[in-house]
Amino acid sequence: MDTIIEYINISGSFVFAVSGALIAMKKRLDPFGVLIVAFITAVGGGTLRDILIDRQVFWLYNTSIIYTVLIGATVAMIFKSKMNFFTKPIFFYDALGLGLFSITGVQIGLEAGLSSSICILLGTVTGVFGGVIRDIVVNRIPVVFKKEIYATASILGGFLYLILIKLNVPNPYSQIIPILFIIIIRLTAVFFNVSLPSIYKRQ
Amino acid sequence: MDTIIEYINISGSFVFAVSGALIAMKKRLDPFGVLIVAFITAVGGGTLRDILIDRQVFWLYNTSIIYTVLIGATVAMIFKSKMNFFTKPIFFYDALGLGLFSITGVQIGLEAGLSSSICILLGTVTGVFGGVIRDIVVNRIPVVFKKEIYATASILGGFLYLILIKLNVPNPYSQIIPILFIIIIRLTAVFFNVSLPSIYKRQ
Amino acid sequence: MDTIIEYINISGSFVFAVSGALIAMKKRLDPFGVLIVAFITAVGGGTLRDILIDRQVFWLYNTSIIYTVLIGATVAMIFKSKMNFFTKPIFFYDALGLGLFSITGVQIGLEAGLSSSICILLGTVTGVFGGVIRDIVVNRIPVVFKKEIYATASILGGFLYLILIKLNVPNPYSQIIPILFIIIIRLTAVFFNVSLPSIYKRQ
Repeated sequence: MDTIIEYINISGSFVFAVSGALIAMKKRLDPFGVLIVAFITAVGGGTLRDILIDRQVFWLYNTSIIYTVLIGATVAMIFKSKMNFFTKPIFFYDALGLGLFSITGVQIGLEAGLSSSICILLGTVTGVFGGVIRDIVVNRIPVVFKKEIYATASILGGFLYLILIKLNVPNPYSQIIPILFIIIIRLTAVFFNVSLPSIYKRQ
Repeated sequence: MDTIIEYINISGSFVFAVSGALIAMKKRLDPFGVLIVAFITAVGGGTLRDILIDRQVFWLYNTSIIYTVLIGATVAMIFKSKMNFFTKPIFFYDALGLGLFSITGVQIGLEAGLSSSICILLGTVTGVFGGVIRDIVVNRIPVVFKKEIYATASILGGFLYLILIKLNVPNPYSQIIPILFIIIIRLTAVFFNVSLPSIYKRQ
Repeated sequence: MDTIIEYINISGSFVFAVSGALIAMKKRLDPFGVLIVAFITAVGGGTLRDILIDRQVFWLYNTSIIYTVLIGATVAMIFKSKMNFFTKPIFFYDALGLGLFSITGVQIGLEAGLSSSICILLGTVTGVFGGVIRDIVVNRIPVVFKKEIYATASILGGFLYLILIKLNVPNPYSQIIPILFIIIIRLTAVFFNVSLPSIYKRQ
C-alpha cells in the first residue's frame, strides 16, 4: 500500500512540477521563480492535507520528492518548445496530477479513520490546492473556478474509489481505475468544453 | 461550554457560507466554485487557528460543519434574489460570522492556556481570516483592508469578553454580549461609514 | 544557541514589520491594515516553517514578538518620511529580514534532524514566505519573482552556513557570517540590478 502512495506521490509531483513550471514560464519568471512555482504546485495540495490531519508533511523526510520537482522543472525549462505536441500541454499535466493526487488524498484520509465525506473532501484538497496556490501566486484566476469541470472530476473519482474499495476490488486496480477516470473526465471536459449548468439568468 | 462552541461553530459556518456564496455569485462562479468559496470562507479562520495552536481541525471529525456549509451555500444560491431585503446582505452575514467566530477564537485560546494578548489575536485570526482567504481567492481587495472598522471590532469584542470573564459573568451571557457587541460595531461602521483616522496627509 | 535564535527572531520580526508597514503605507491602508500587514510579514515565514515541521509556532508563547511587531509598525508609521535616507528603504529592511530569518530556518531544520537539502529549503521558506504572503495580501507581484536575485541569496547563505558548521566555526560567527553574506548579496543585486540569466529568447 505504502509503496503505491510513494509511486503516486513521485509521479504526481513530477507532472505538477511540469505544469507549474510551464505556467511560470508563460509569466516569464526567472529560472528560480520557475523552480519555486513548480515546487509550490507539486507539494501544495499534499502539504495542506498533511497539515490538516496532523500527519508528517510528505516531502519533509523524503528528499526524492525535492529531486523529482527539480527534474520536472528542469525538463520543462529545457524541452519547453518540444512539449507543445499537446495542444494544451498545461491542461494535460494538470489533469494527470489531479487524478493522481486526488486518490492518494482519499486513501490517506481512510488510513486516518476519517468519515467518507471528509475523505472525499481531503482528496479534493490534495488534488486541487497545489494548482489553486500556484494560480494565486502567479496572479491568475484559479483554474478551479474556470468554466470547465475540475473539482467535480476529483469528487466523482473519490466516490468511485470508495465504491471500488467496498466491492473489494484488489490493489492497485482500485486506485488505477479512479485515477484514469478523473484524468479522462477532466481532459474530456477541456477538449469538449463541458461545464456545469449555469445558475445565472442570461444577460 | 463545549456545546456552546459547537452551536457557535455551526451558526458561524452557516452565515460565513452564505456570505462566501454571495460573493462568489457576484463573481459569477459556477455552482461548484460557489460551494468551494463558501467552504473556504466558513472554515478558513477556524482552520488556521487550529493549525496554529496544534489542535484538531474543527471540521475534520465533525461532518455537521460540512453539511451546514452545503446547506448555507445552497440556500444562498436558491434564495439569492430574496436575500436582498437587506441593503447590503453580504456585510450583514459577514458581520454575524465575525462576531461569532472572534469569540470562539478567544475562548479556545484561553482553554489552550495562552496569554490574554495572544488570545485576542487568535480571536481576530478566527474571525477575520476566512474572509481574507475568500477575498484573496476571488481576487478582491481583502475586506479587512477596506476603510470601515473590521478587525478593530473583533479586537474590542475580544477585550470585552476577557473583562466579562474576569467579572465572573456566567455562560452564555459572557459570550453572547461580546458577540452582539462586535456585530453592532461592525454594522454601525458600515451603515454610518465610520473608519479609523487617516495617517496620510490630504492630497 | 536558543538565545541567539531568540535575538534573531526579535530583530528579524522588527525589520520585517518595518518593511511590511512601509509597503502597506504605500498602498495607503488604514493604521490597522498597516499593523496586520506588518504582522503577517514578520511572522509569516517562521509560522509556515513551524507548522511544516510540527514545532510550536514561535510567537504563540512569546508575547515579545507581538510587541516587537507593534513597535516596528508604529516606528514605521511615525518616522515614515525620515526613513527615506535610504534610497530604497523597503529593500533594505527586507534584505535584513531575509538574511536573519533564512539562517534561523536552516538552524531549526538541523535541530529537527532534517537532511541538508531540506534544511536549506526550510531556511528559504522562513526567509522568503513572510514577504510572499505580504505581497499576495496587498495584491503586489511577489518580490521573489522580480528580476533581482532574492531566494538565490537565501539558498547560497544556507549552503555557506552548513559549510561553516562542518568547519567547526564557533557560535555566533557561524551564524553572523552567512547572515551578512545574504544581506550583502541581496543589496548588491538590487543596487547593481543583477539578475539570473534569462531562459527566454529575446523578443
